[in-house]
Amino acid sequence: MGGDALDQLTALVARLPGLGPRSARRLVLHLVRNRERVLQPLMAALERVEAQLATCPVCGNIDVMAPCRICSDPRRDGTLICVVADVADLWALERGRLFQGRYHVLGGLLSALDGVRPEDLAVAPLLARLRPAEGPPVSEVVLAMAATLEGQTTAHFVAERLAGAGVAVTQLAHGVPVGGELDYLDEGTLAQALKLRRPV
Amino acid sequence: MGGDALDQLTALVARLPGLGPRSARRLVLHLVRNRERVLQPLMAALERVEAQLATCPVCGNIDVMAPCRICSDPRRDGTLICVVADVADLWALERGRLFQGRYHVLGGLLSALDGVRPEDLAVAPLLARLRPAEGPPVSEVVLAMAATLEGQTTAHFVAERLAGAGVAVTQLAHGVPVGGELDYLDEGTLAQALKLRRPV
Repeated sequence: MGGDALDQLTALVARLPGLGPRSARRLVLHLVRNRERVLQPLMAALERVEAQLATCPVCGNIDVMAPCRICSDPRRDGTLICVVADVADLWALERGRLFQGRYHVLGGLLSALDGVRPEDLAVAPLLARLRPAEGPPVSEVVLAMAATLEGQTTAHFVAERLAGAGVAVTQLAHGVPVGGELDYLDEGTLAQALKLRRPV
Repeated sequence: MGGDALDQLTALVARLPGLGPRSARRLVLHLVRNRERVLQPLMAALERVEAQLATCPVCGNIDVMAPCRICSDPRRDGTLICVVADVADLWALERGRLFQGRYHVLGGLLSALDGVRPEDLAVAPLLARLRPAEGPPVSEVVLAMAATLEGQTTAHFVAERLAGAGVAVTQLAHGVPVGGELDYLDEGTLAQALKLRRPV
């Protein structure tokens, strides 16, 4: 039955983060009532993004260009690398335009429970980035992991692997609330934590 | 620059009802991190809806079939028509599965301020529906307009046009909302609820 297309769309929208059945219905209604002004531009934007979507081969960011716009930006400080667990954390830091260096996405945090082992994290690619073929070597690696047990375990593990590589290793200051996820933090706290970063 | 595609998508999502810049970014991140599981099904559902989208020639509902699924459903009572200002109101009533008749969308409320005049409302098509070529005539028209000045002005205008058409004309009851505390209600609602009091 044709009507199912609207129900299916509403069900898909209702499962998106921050939305529920009621807000999904309102959102879909808004889309179908504004076909040319809202629905069609949104579809075009989704198609552009989907077609161009790529994981950055350098840092692991998800972007619509590869290397990503951060790795491609000559104004970003290539001697400073901020290591994050996840793309969500990278986006959270970028949201506040707090950091002028580049990033490295580990792809997770060490976790016995979730079965994330050292070899699952992109540490070797990080080490390979420290002395690039072109340009100056990396001088500082900032570990920006959550202040959780898993985050700090991972930070220590990465710091150990970086020992002797001739780079300063720092981590976010404990302005990060214990148990807090980076993705949900306000920008002021993130800014403080960045500013007060200290050697491990 | 390629990065603009993501920014454009985020800006479009941020303008959708119930979303803002922050939730839009989280939503877009969720989409791009789940390209095959979330983004592509959502795009397919949007395309299906967009391709099939139509305004029902009978009642004015927006649906992915024409006549809409309500006007096409033989189980709905065709002798009962609920008149609403807007498709949003129709969807709100349908959400609760409260009404087993059919609908008629006026397309607005009379408003000097917004320049909505009697001839802008779909009243003539409503009158034409009262005695269909096939099936029984309409026996009751329920006016489901908002309890605002414009809603009630429009309800009176439609009721006048229906006078002498041989149908019962009713309107939604006014009173205390279910679950509503008297303490928080406006005086207009309280006055209506008192005036329309009925025996227990």
